[in-house]
Amino acid sequence: MKQLTIVKIGGNVIDNSENLHRFLLDFTALAGDKILVHGGGKIATELGESLGIESKMIEGRRITDIETLRIVTMVYAGLINKNMVAQLQAKNCNAIGLTGADGNIIKAKKRPIQKAKVSPSEGDLPAGQAGLEGDKAKDIDYGFVGDLNENSVSSATLDNLLKTGMVPVLCAITHDGDGQLLNTNADTIASAVSVAMSSLYETRLVYCFEKKGVLIDVNDDLSVVREIKADEFEGLKANGTVAGGMIPKLHNAFEAIKKGVSAVYIGKADELNELKSGVFGTKLNP
Amino acid sequence: MKQLTIVKIGGNVIDNSENLHRFLLDFTALAGDKILVHGGGKIATELGESLGIESKMIEGRRITDIETLRIVTMVYAGLINKNMVAQLQAKNCNAIGLTGADGNIIKAKKRPIQKAKVSPSEGDLPAGQAGLEGDKAKDIDYGFVGDLNENSVSSATLDNLLKTGMVPVLCAITHDGDGQLLNTNADTIASAVSVAMSSLYETRLVYCFEKKGVLIDVNDDLSVVREIKADEFEGLKANGTVAGGMIPKLHNAFEAIKKGVSAVYIGKADELNELKSGVFGTKLNP
Repeated sequence: MKQLTIVKIGGNVIDNSENLHRFLLDFTALAGDKILVHGGGKIATELGESLGIESKMIEGRRITDIETLRIVTMVYAGLINKNMVAQLQAKNCNAIGLTGADGNIIKAKKRPIQKAKVSPSEGDLPAGQAGLEGDKAKDIDYGFVGDLNENSVSSATLDNLLKTGMVPVLCAITHDGDGQLLNTNADTIASAVSVAMSSLYETRLVYCFEKKGVLIDVNDDLSVVREIKADEFEGLKANGTVAGGMIPKLHNAFEAIKKGVSAVYIGKADELNELKSGVFGTKLNP
Repeated sequence: MKQLTIVKIGGNVIDNSENLHRFLLDFTALAGDKILVHGGGKIATELGESLGIESKMIEGRRITDIETLRIVTMVYAGLINKNMVAQLQAKNCNAIGLTGADGNIIKAKKRPIQKAKVSPSEGDLPAGQAGLEGDKAKDIDYGFVGDLNENSVSSATLDNLLKTGMVPVLCAITHDGDGQLLNTNADTIASAVSVAMSSLYETRLVYCFEKKGVLIDVNDDLSVVREIKADEFEGLKANGTVAGGMIPKLHNAFEAIKKGVSAVYIGKADELNELKSGVFGTKLNP
């Protein structure tokens, strides 16, 4: 089975042109087939501010109203994706930038309106999202957010592109198949693509984030846990090594492994070239 | 030889959602392999205005400074291209939206600074573009504009995509191969792609614009000239049937025919489905 590496980067790489240049060099140097998945960084927020469009958050999650969707489509699929593709091409990496709509690669489902507990102190929700007076369970409309399921990713189409030597660069925009673009979390896209491709490739998924990996001491970058097996996860949660935002991250990673992904790595983008030796950040194993 | 149709649309189709919907239905219904090329319409200008960025023109041509390049990249490659792709997918047309950077499909060369005669009444040129005092030949820097040559288009890559059943949707953004995105006229892209593909396909090129074709009487939509042969072009210029902006349009069309394109059609987007019968707008023949 051929090897495929899927690398996801976030804002901390995208927002700094020097970091991005270095990362793209290291990404280009990775052997074998590969796919890059990227989020948006600060640029979308800044463009929204320049246009006087406030970003709306509920429970820490961004609401994608129609204006926000326009902005993320322009910034993710246009500005960031195409500049990254041009830079990869300059490094002799035959990148092709795509949303989920292109070639129907990722079909998502618009998130249904959800009941969520909110505290009255959060104040007014945007128009149309008001719940019942005095009722703490309010309807939350996340807007144009796309959720994925096990049939969302067209592995055959991605495989066709890989076979012709191309390197897909996927941004966090999908579609519903009925003409509507949607905004889908880039971590979710990376995971769903990895799972779908694992029927055709020996697939490893690499999440780049701001830390060097799972740290025993959150203040000590040298305290990286090199390897976590699925059956060790509960213990690390219990003893506090894995806490906060790392819990869902690792949970999702182990879910991907359960569904066929060979290994998931979590580490810092500027150390990506260490992946060649197999020692990069924290490696999650079955 | 398989048939390939390349259709170019402009702002008058893109700016009206009803026109666009109808056009995309007719485009989807076209038999055989096809490629869509689109320009930008008013949206880029409007976004620029919202952001307080003035569009700069010299001799009727837009200057693509770095801010303008950012905007057209967001609008052409992001907003317009991806919405069009999503709508085509909804119509069961397996569209894939691309810039010239994607898959290195179109490599352009940044236009060099040019001497151009300008009248003193045009006033000051943008900074860095001032000519010699009292000299009417000034240096004009068009900015991030990409010119094409006979080697710009990778016909093999487009052919690979067509062979897997995809329909490339190309916007007016190219790259220089060294990491820089460039803005290239969409008519020029349509023509260069048609010429390059004519070694592999029997290629016809369709320009959609606001008129029903070349008109004998510019005020009478029914006076469409159905067919023009290359050797009739000079005569039609001499008697005034072809005048103004139609002259370079037809000149470029006949150049494409000289270089291998089977036929060029010029007509109105809302009549595209008449192309099936072979009677659409004005047909230019060798």
